[in-house]
Amino acid sequence: MIPTKAYAAQSAAATLTPFNFERRNPGAHDVEIDILFCGVCHTDIHFINNDFGMSIYPMVPGHEIVGRVVSVGNHVKKFKQGDIAGVGCLVDSCRDCDYCNEGLEQYCANGGVFTYSGLEKDGKTVTQGGYSNKIVVDERFVLKVSDKLSPAHAAPLLCAGITTYSPLRHWKVGKGHKIGIVGLGGLGHMAIKFAVAFGAEVTVLSTSPGKKEDALKLGAHNFVITTDEEQVKTVASQFNFILDTLSANHDYAMYVGMLKVDGTLICVGLPSEPIHMPAFNIVFTRKCVAGSLIGGLPETQEMLDYCAEHNITSDVEVIPIQQIQQAYQRMLKSDVKYRFVIDMASL
Amino acid sequence: MIPTKAYAAQSAAATLTPFNFERRNPGAHDVEIDILFCGVCHTDIHFINNDFGMSIYPMVPGHEIVGRVVSVGNHVKKFKQGDIAGVGCLVDSCRDCDYCNEGLEQYCANGGVFTYSGLEKDGKTVTQGGYSNKIVVDERFVLKVSDKLSPAHAAPLLCAGITTYSPLRHWKVGKGHKIGIVGLGGLGHMAIKFAVAFGAEVTVLSTSPGKKEDALKLGAHNFVITTDEEQVKTVASQFNFILDTLSANHDYAMYVGMLKVDGTLICVGLPSEPIHMPAFNIVFTRKCVAGSLIGGLPETQEMLDYCAEHNITSDVEVIPIQQIQQAYQRMLKSDVKYRFVIDMASL
Repeated sequence: MIPTKAYAAQSAAATLTPFNFERRNPGAHDVEIDILFCGVCHTDIHFINNDFGMSIYPMVPGHEIVGRVVSVGNHVKKFKQGDIAGVGCLVDSCRDCDYCNEGLEQYCANGGVFTYSGLEKDGKTVTQGGYSNKIVVDERFVLKVSDKLSPAHAAPLLCAGITTYSPLRHWKVGKGHKIGIVGLGGLGHMAIKFAVAFGAEVTVLSTSPGKKEDALKLGAHNFVITTDEEQVKTVASQFNFILDTLSANHDYAMYVGMLKVDGTLICVGLPSEPIHMPAFNIVFTRKCVAGSLIGGLPETQEMLDYCAEHNITSDVEVIPIQQIQQAYQRMLKSDVKYRFVIDMASL
Repeated sequence: MIPTKAYAAQSAAATLTPFNFERRNPGAHDVEIDILFCGVCHTDIHFINNDFGMSIYPMVPGHEIVGRVVSVGNHVKKFKQGDIAGVGCLVDSCRDCDYCNEGLEQYCANGGVFTYSGLEKDGKTVTQGGYSNKIVVDERFVLKVSDKLSPAHAAPLLCAGITTYSPLRHWKVGKGHKIGIVGLGGLGHMAIKFAVAFGAEVTVLSTSPGKKEDALKLGAHNFVITTDEEQVKTVASQFNFILDTLSANHDYAMYVGMLKVDGTLICVGLPSEPIHMPAFNIVFTRKCVAGSLIGGLPETQEMLDYCAEHNITSDVEVIPIQQIQQAYQRMLKSDVKYRFVIDMASL
């Protein structure tokens, strides 16, 4: 077994503290990675707080992992010692259902294995995430990270990146489309970069007037304050798509009103309160309200390769792991541009 | 002006009584039709009761109209005296927006003119519907009804037919697809016939065990009682599409749970209570909740032609107009297989 240093929550809503545990020895298909950087996702806070009622403690959070390969099993083909590699939200799945066979492991019919606070397929080994110095993962669930990408800036691509890239590709967003992006945070800022790169006309829909300059700097073409009724009127029935990244509770009907006929509101956030909207709002204009979850492994690799080719990474603030609690406090106030990334050298 | 006999509601929730009014003389592009039959749609009850707050009285309901052309204007090209013709939910639209130009008049950006309780484009003439012996409509909004179709059985195609045909075509439902149909009424029974004709595997989702035999007779392959938890479990994650025809309040989340990954719940009914559903239900499985409204004029013609070619019509119970109140009472108890149609000879 491999001794591993980490930070963990010992119980719901606990402060993270240093934690030692063991990773499995690499099997024939495993890749052993020394973690260099791990992004800090809002989901980490939800899981530490057991907001979804599925948390397992002690919990080492973190699913935006970039590191260096230090050893590989005998049958590993894609990786060799010294490669830069990434691990996202999944470390395994049944690998045998229709979805796994299509490379849509995130929709595995038998339930994928989440990178932390999940159970391995043995049904008992608890998975532990990237706020740690080492991880061992089957190569199918390990991504190649190009040398062209800064490892710290690439880490958030493993969740924030693929969560926005995947729906934009699935719904074929591109030239000739007008898209609204709701929420300028970790996901939203990646959504702007991808939607602009794909050729769409991008409008950021925000409640914060102060974010206008940043939105335009990130490449957005327009900015609308959604608390200003007059501005909202100017975008009524305007968008082919709206990508809604909010995890805070909000009014879905307002955004549906901004869609053209046949428009789609794509939700990637998980607010605690349900969607609440008259059927009238979608029936009279043939609109869709849809959801999307991260991306499968092949698409995550495609996204990383696209980012390397087009020089797209996340805007990050690198912190030592000892500052994780302050980082959470600032995230809850949206005080980060746009993703904290932990430098694991600080462990 | 053309003297016209009808039945009308004089105020909200009033009993329908005989009513005389005048239709305009046919203009150069108009078709004058002697109405033979008019279907009775649930929407008629909603409008009589002013459930949507947009009713205008006196109101002659009816938007499933089939009749015989008795005269045409000088510039009318598609119709001649003696033709059988149909009129559906729309009698006009702006004819100038992107949607009208695409033949999607039901989504007219400037608002289509509904067949009754609407305002003509002059902004003051109130439209009156098909519970009458005559109607005058611009030929763009008049449909050809094949001699192969029984006029009484064809009348409901103008609303119940196109409302179900259009979404099935839009989402390309056909061979290899499993579809659930919610609600075995006027719309639902047409949805079964079309979905079966298009090659899909059709399951009727119903709360009424007594409807099983009828559902199978109509061509459905399977029948599930949605109040039986065990039966509901057997269809979890099973359908590519569900067409939800209910206008009564119901649980959307249960139906979403029956969809496969990438499945779409298509809503065509308008319950008074909003859709209420956790975002989780669509995000974790990339599902869509969508709406659809009747169909445009070109697609309505396509549907009528398809019905003539494939011998598809509505199952109807023909009544004299004097029995309209009893018909409404029975509709509210779902006691009709599956559409009342008024024989206008009774006027």
